[in-house]
Amino acid sequence: MAKASVDIRSLMTGAAGAGPSSWAAAPGRQVAISFGGGLPDPATFPIEELIADVATVLRRDGDAALQYGGLVGYDGLRESIAERSRRADGRAVDGGNVVLTSGSAHALSLTCFAFVSAGDTVLIEAPTFAGSLRAIRSYGGRLVTVSVDERGMSVDDLEEKLAALKAEGRRPKLLYTIPNFHNPAGVTMSLERRRRLVRLAQEWQFLVVEDDAYGDLRYDGEPLPSLFALDDSGLVLKLGSFSKILAAGLRMGWAIGDPEVVGALTSVRHDMGVSPMVARTIAEFSKVRLEPHIQRLIAHYRGKRDRMVAALGEHCAPWVRFTTPEGGFFLWLELAPGVDPDALAQATAGEDVGYVPGPAFFADGDGRRNLRLAFSFVPSDDIERGIAGLGRALSRSARPT
Amino acid sequence: MAKASVDIRSLMTGAAGAGPSSWAAAPGRQVAISFGGGLPDPATFPIEELIADVATVLRRDGDAALQYGGLVGYDGLRESIAERSRRADGRAVDGGNVVLTSGSAHALSLTCFAFVSAGDTVLIEAPTFAGSLRAIRSYGGRLVTVSVDERGMSVDDLEEKLAALKAEGRRPKLLYTIPNFHNPAGVTMSLERRRRLVRLAQEWQFLVVEDDAYGDLRYDGEPLPSLFALDDSGLVLKLGSFSKILAAGLRMGWAIGDPEVVGALTSVRHDMGVSPMVARTIAEFSKVRLEPHIQRLIAHYRGKRDRMVAALGEHCAPWVRFTTPEGGFFLWLELAPGVDPDALAQATAGEDVGYVPGPAFFADGDGRRNLRLAFSFVPSDDIERGIAGLGRALSRSARPT
Repeated sequence: MAKASVDIRSLMTGAAGAGPSSWAAAPGRQVAISFGGGLPDPATFPIEELIADVATVLRRDGDAALQYGGLVGYDGLRESIAERSRRADGRAVDGGNVVLTSGSAHALSLTCFAFVSAGDTVLIEAPTFAGSLRAIRSYGGRLVTVSVDERGMSVDDLEEKLAALKAEGRRPKLLYTIPNFHNPAGVTMSLERRRRLVRLAQEWQFLVVEDDAYGDLRYDGEPLPSLFALDDSGLVLKLGSFSKILAAGLRMGWAIGDPEVVGALTSVRHDMGVSPMVARTIAEFSKVRLEPHIQRLIAHYRGKRDRMVAALGEHCAPWVRFTTPEGGFFLWLELAPGVDPDALAQATAGEDVGYVPGPAFFADGDGRRNLRLAFSFVPSDDIERGIAGLGRALSRSARPT
Repeated sequence: MAKASVDIRSLMTGAAGAGPSSWAAAPGRQVAISFGGGLPDPATFPIEELIADVATVLRRDGDAALQYGGLVGYDGLRESIAERSRRADGRAVDGGNVVLTSGSAHALSLTCFAFVSAGDTVLIEAPTFAGSLRAIRSYGGRLVTVSVDERGMSVDDLEEKLAALKAEGRRPKLLYTIPNFHNPAGVTMSLERRRRLVRLAQEWQFLVVEDDAYGDLRYDGEPLPSLFALDDSGLVLKLGSFSKILAAGLRMGWAIGDPEVVGALTSVRHDMGVSPMVARTIAEFSKVRLEPHIQRLIAHYRGKRDRMVAALGEHCAPWVRFTTPEGGFFLWLELAPGVDPDALAQATAGEDVGYVPGPAFFADGDGRRNLRLAFSFVPSDDIERGIAGLGRALSRSARPT
């Protein structure tokens, strides 16, 4: 396109300067075996079932499914999500506590729009999901990080940060956490820490955004109560998604919480709501197919996790440390002192193996000695081959001992 | 839900205070015959064709259609949209000029996020689409209104407003306009005004957002070049939508423009892109079905417009004035001096007929003597019945002459 001389960049807001980060790119372009993106396994997509359900919906309810459907979304799916929450969280919720969004990432974006003004203090975990970091920054949130260990977010560290903020006359507006099968750290927050976190939120009066995109995918152990289950103040908003338990390409997530909080999210959206066709199709799928589908996913992904853990033990043991996750998609590796992360990045490229380097998950460039592996996407039979390649790369990147 | 005593509202941003306006509600709840919402006619939804196309897409490309698809959206649909623009606008564009969004409303929201900081001056038409008004306000835009007459936005008034802003040391950042079959005013901007507007944008260096959601639905006369077609600076961003030419429930729109502008929109979205399943289904539909479908829609909606115009002539002539729109969905009525708008609102409720009162489309509470009628949604055979009811209500709301 021809152009008169115009400096378009000078018209942009600060938010537009940042640009999309690399995790947003379409998957699998660059390396033969990518442990990079947190992508569901296409082998699990229930294609014929979805074709049947979308046909049922369009023939039965086409007039409504293809029309505008309002900002909060299809009541049938909101009610179905509330029903799952009543069972899992034991809260007396109904569809009025739920708003449908274009994935849980969109729900977080709306939450920031509704609750984070430029300069507001936002508490996040270090590490945390790169996409969430980007969203919170877009709204001008002033980030304060809380450390994460093998029992999830450190509530001791949180208390210290709150005290330090108080000393500066600052008060946090919002805390963002991934308590189950943390992305990227793989860890799960302990019950004791969950209780303390909810108490702190009530005491300090900040909103807690509980991102639970992976919560249904638990492979070992007993489910813990969600923060939402432990709260009675309305200050916990829980985000969920069909991306990992059905299909990411449907772009359907939700937020469930106090009606006033959910209403605030709704009031700042301008997309006229999610697709009623997609929402109704998922509601149809949820009637009888969803729960057995999730059980199959659990068996499938448990097997992939176990293969990756075993392969790491065989090929990478001297050079990495990690906590085996009880669910979710991710292994979070810490490199042994002798391994040079830059050399590793070069060496893995040569092996045609992909991962996400740790700094993507930190607000401050930390995480140089970490990397995230997703075991979810790569076909089971390629996992060992990829991890063997990673092992060779690690051996070449390590100082001789 | 039980609640500890928490003032959640005190945590919200200014944007969350406004709340969704009534146009966002699901259609048809309140009155028997609603000329209110700008809704497509469900009788036009190509249900069996969409079922066939979604099945084709899921069987052929299920792995990609149900996976994350990246922030800009499915290349095949972006290229198809660019191809239509090459034909209509004569611009040398390709898929790289296009970003897919959740309807054109979402594209406007992203544009504001990328270009409107709190306090920035934004030029809008008076009247304008209520949803757009709400979006621009959410981002803190300082609105300056430009009047609209039967030839569209008054560029004379625009020049006066620009001069007045300059005198105050202010410079507009963005101008939002609906040049074709204006919502709500029904009018179309003349070619001479289009040329002058583009020249002014280049001279003053502001972004023009050309909302063309209705542009394909022209019932009379020859198409005029779009603002995008007349610009060579990159300062015109054109928004489009499948809501009116296919189905609103698919929630698929786009922005087409300079790659730097389109990239700015992409950089501030956090929804991980539109549904690849829906985008690929629309691309499949666009291969051979879309153009004949649009021709059928034109014939269908032309008939509805003509019925409403005829019915207004028969039942309402003494009390209203309007310009017959050459396309789109709307008639914009001005009440004769003797009609009391409040009495009319009461009387139409009694007749079970709905419309949108004029003030919804003004930033400043103006428009008390206007109302918008959509002829698109109500079944053809109900149009005359509804307009007859409106005529009775008008007769009861008018001063005896």
